[in-house]
Amino acid sequence: MPVTDQAFVTLVTNDIYCQGALVLGKSLRNHNTSRQLVIMITSQVTSRMRGILAHVFDVVVEVSTLDSADSVRLSLLKRPELGITFTKLQCWTLTQYTKCVYMDADTIVLCNIDELFDRVELSAAPDSGWPDCFNSGVFVFKPSVETFSHLLRFAESHGSFDGGDQGLLNSFFNTWAVSDISKHLPFIYNLSISSVYTYKPAFKQFGSEAKVVHFIGTPKPWNLKYNPQAKCVVEDESLSGHQHLSFLTLWWELYISDVLPLLTETEDLERSSCEQEKATTTGALHHVGQIELLMKNDHPPPVYSPETPADYADWTLPDCKAEHHAFDDTVEGQDLQVPTETCLEQPVTQDDTPMVFLLDVFTNHLSPFCLLNHLLSLIDTSITVFQMKNIGLSFFKIYN
Amino acid sequence: MPVTDQAFVTLVTNDIYCQGALVLGKSLRNHNTSRQLVIMITSQVTSRMRGILAHVFDVVVEVSTLDSADSVRLSLLKRPELGITFTKLQCWTLTQYTKCVYMDADTIVLCNIDELFDRVELSAAPDSGWPDCFNSGVFVFKPSVETFSHLLRFAESHGSFDGGDQGLLNSFFNTWAVSDISKHLPFIYNLSISSVYTYKPAFKQFGSEAKVVHFIGTPKPWNLKYNPQAKCVVEDESLSGHQHLSFLTLWWELYISDVLPLLTETEDLERSSCEQEKATTTGALHHVGQIELLMKNDHPPPVYSPETPADYADWTLPDCKAEHHAFDDTVEGQDLQVPTETCLEQPVTQDDTPMVFLLDVFTNHLSPFCLLNHLLSLIDTSITVFQMKNIGLSFFKIYN
Repeated sequence: MPVTDQAFVTLVTNDIYCQGALVLGKSLRNHNTSRQLVIMITSQVTSRMRGILAHVFDVVVEVSTLDSADSVRLSLLKRPELGITFTKLQCWTLTQYTKCVYMDADTIVLCNIDELFDRVELSAAPDSGWPDCFNSGVFVFKPSVETFSHLLRFAESHGSFDGGDQGLLNSFFNTWAVSDISKHLPFIYNLSISSVYTYKPAFKQFGSEAKVVHFIGTPKPWNLKYNPQAKCVVEDESLSGHQHLSFLTLWWELYISDVLPLLTETEDLERSSCEQEKATTTGALHHVGQIELLMKNDHPPPVYSPETPADYADWTLPDCKAEHHAFDDTVEGQDLQVPTETCLEQPVTQDDTPMVFLLDVFTNHLSPFCLLNHLLSLIDTSITVFQMKNIGLSFFKIYN
Repeated sequence: MPVTDQAFVTLVTNDIYCQGALVLGKSLRNHNTSRQLVIMITSQVTSRMRGILAHVFDVVVEVSTLDSADSVRLSLLKRPELGITFTKLQCWTLTQYTKCVYMDADTIVLCNIDELFDRVELSAAPDSGWPDCFNSGVFVFKPSVETFSHLLRFAESHGSFDGGDQGLLNSFFNTWAVSDISKHLPFIYNLSISSVYTYKPAFKQFGSEAKVVHFIGTPKPWNLKYNPQAKCVVEDESLSGHQHLSFLTLWWELYISDVLPLLTETEDLERSSCEQEKATTTGALHHVGQIELLMKNDHPPPVYSPETPADYADWTLPDCKAEHHAFDDTVEGQDLQVPTETCLEQPVTQDDTPMVFLLDVFTNHLSPFCLLNHLLSLIDTSITVFQMKNIGLSFFKIYN
């Protein structure tokens, strides 16, 4: 039974974080939340992305930034560093709901967590850095114009000790650590990683009970390399000994299964309905992540013949023509930066060594998504060796 | 008014950790605690060190290790990994006290914290790694043979998820995170460091309220280099960006002002009363830390004349003779490792560059302490340049 007066709320200020919000929203949907899904966005989010968000969230609401004109907000201009903080605080203005759970866009839920709505404002889990502060990545709150107004005045007079919403909210709700244990959400509702040596054994003991994972700090899951064949995040130095590989993998699995199709479907729709508009809506490229594809030598290599595109029959890309201009030098300066070189991690050889392709994923750019989707469709079928002197270039030469 | 039925309790299992316990004990005394100070020690602590501990603690009590013979304890032998855990649990057997506060030997108090005795068992501060666990470095407990027995049985049947007392105690007192906010000691009663990015601003905001600092993990304060002239811990790579430098410095200040004199006084006493026994009581060397002394060019350098010990008149060491054998090849093999080479960090030059001496500090070894004490007495007076081709060797040649 849907509960229409309560909502999960998140916030994004650009198209990159939308990738996270879409995964979060899908994870809530997949675990059958009965609550509404609301996403607050700022003006930086492109109209194409807004359309995609509307496929997952019940409400997409644009919130203002510090250029607003009313006096309370203007007073905050004295503290320009609190811009994003101010933006997040606007969740308290969602008074069409009686209670909400705010969740950062870099979180993912692992099960139904609707029981959080049994809690009262302000309930939150302890921060793993300074555990007498709550982490403001997940919190239960009650929308109220009055509270919002108090928060703004408090921000104006006290500022935020960390320059963000967490410092401000902890100063405002400053009895959290000592007053009411029921306002302490278990850490498994906002599980973040820590390098403190006591974390590892506790994670081993309690990690399986995790309900919400919060990918705090860097790297964000969408900045990682993912190999959909091995179904794992590609480990590099930054991930050495990382306790949360399985959660990062889970994020990517959901991204590939539930979010990428959304992006490409929307793209297909747009392509057919408003082909002419595309050039103006694409805007700047936002680098998201990398997908690694290992090209195995399951088949004998095709004859090397750069003049004959037919040699790459196994790589037929149905929309070659439509994709062409995205990698054409003549359309937008940024497109020149599309990774013709960086998509190749290993030097190309003529021998039988499997090769690793790194496909960069961009938001707000049609072709990489289509291309990606096509490549992914190959993964579970057959992958033909594709050896060229300059595989990156040739790979994209197909589009010509 | 002394409260004789309540006590602060700590534990050491070797002479090195005694350095920490002595600083902790002195910090409690300096802040006028009205409670008893109890230290539990194991058989590895040398008799000389026991004597020194008795100068600071009201009670020095040896507790057993797993070789005990009673049946409950023997049952724990099935889990030999819990040896140290078992040792710590014995604080519950101190039933001469109605309530105690346990503190790890790597903690230091910054003010009077007797108010902790207002709390009930089991009160503790959250762990900065996994904040739904309490950190077992500081906790309020009620000695009880019954609780002790339950703990042992629990340990036998459940083990410890981290192989130590923290895992065991968190599993035993497993409602800490959710049941009673009054059992949550504020984090400032067990402030440990964290590299989580949220820690830094929170420390800047709340760090000045710290009451107990806990030097978790590595490096321990006694493993650092300290410069008593600059009154600071010498930063190296392991301390880069360390938030707790001021606390580490505080630890060393207390160590030099209150603990080293104890060690040297005891040494003087021992030297006069039982010179003959010394060789047998010194035992193995335990490397503790390093003290860095910068030799400034405040005076013209003395004439270099290696054959004339009188040239080093400014370095008269009153007990040269007594110290001699400590650096003599003929007394104990370990003594050969005394840092004649390592005491010198920079290559020796004949020019006016100030030189840095690194004096290694050892426990259970008389001479380094006396030497150190003498050097420290020079710090606030005058320091004469002391340039030699091989300063380390020559430095100790004085003893010959």
